[in-house]
Amino acid sequence: MSDCIFCRMIAGEIPSLRIHEDEDCIAVLDIGPAEKGHTLIIPKRHYEDVTDGLSAEVLGKLMKTAAVIGARQKERLHADGFNIVQNNGEAAGQTVHHLHIHVIPRFQGGPVIAGWNPTDPGQEALREVYELLKD
Amino acid sequence: MSDCIFCRMIAGEIPSLRIHEDEDCIAVLDIGPAEKGHTLIIPKRHYEDVTDGLSAEVLGKLMKTAAVIGARQKERLHADGFNIVQNNGEAAGQTVHHLHIHVIPRFQGGPVIAGWNPTDPGQEALREVYELLKD
Repeated sequence: MSDCIFCRMIAGEIPSLRIHEDEDCIAVLDIGPAEKGHTLIIPKRHYEDVTDGLSAEVLGKLMKTAAVIGARQKERLHADGFNIVQNNGEAAGQTVHHLHIHVIPRFQGGPVIAGWNPTDPGQEALREVYELLKD
Repeated sequence: MSDCIFCRMIAGEIPSLRIHEDEDCIAVLDIGPAEKGHTLIIPKRHYEDVTDGLSAEVLGKLMKTAAVIGARQKERLHADGFNIVQNNGEAAGQTVHHLHIHVIPRFQGGPVIAGWNPTDPGQEALREVYELLKD
C-alpha cells in the first residue's frame, strides 16, 4: 500500500469529493480551501513535482482540465476570476509530494492568493540574472 | 500597432530580457520580480486568459517551458523550489490581459508567494460546493 495520500485517494482508500475524473487525472475539492470551490487537479500517475519527467502532452491535459474547472467556478459559483497555482518543493509551499495543480476561485473583495509585492532590482541586477538564466 | 504590451514585447517594439524563445512562446524576466529570477512565459499568440480557446497541446508546451525554466532557477540560482502561477481575471490579480505564466523561484526564508490560509468549511458546505461543481 502506498504511503502517498494522493495515490491512496486515487485508489479510493481515502475518501474525496471528486468533481471530475478522466483517464489522466482526478479533480477533487480541497478540504482546506483558500476559497469556496478550491479544487486540486491530481494526475493518476505519481509524479513528485512538475520536473519529474512529465511530457508536454500530460501537462497539457492537466492544464486543460484546470482551465475547464476554472471556467466552471466562474459559471456555477459566480467567481470573478481564478488562480492556477502549482508548487514545487517545500520551500514553495508544496506539502504533498505528488504533483497537483490548485484551481482557486477568486471573488471581488476576497483574500489575496498568489500575490506578491513587486520589487525594483534595477537594470544591473536584472542583467546579471539574465546572463545566468538565458538559453 | 497593437496596444497589448506583451504583443508589442513579442514584436520587439518594447525591450525585454528574453531568456528563452521558441516557436510558441518567449520567456522574459519580470521587471518587478517577486524574487530574483521571476520569469514570465508568454505565448506568441494573443490569448486573453487560460479559458480563451487554447488547446491542450499549446498549454502543454507552455507548461513544459515553465517546468524547464523552474528547474533552471534551481540549478543556476540555487533556488530551493518554485511556484508556477497563472492568474485569470482582474479579481485574480491579472494585470496584463495576454495570457502568461509566472515561474517564481523560492528560497528558504524568502517571502511567501502563492500562499493562503486554509479554512475549515465543514462537510455540509463542502458537499454543497461538490454538487455545484461535479461533472
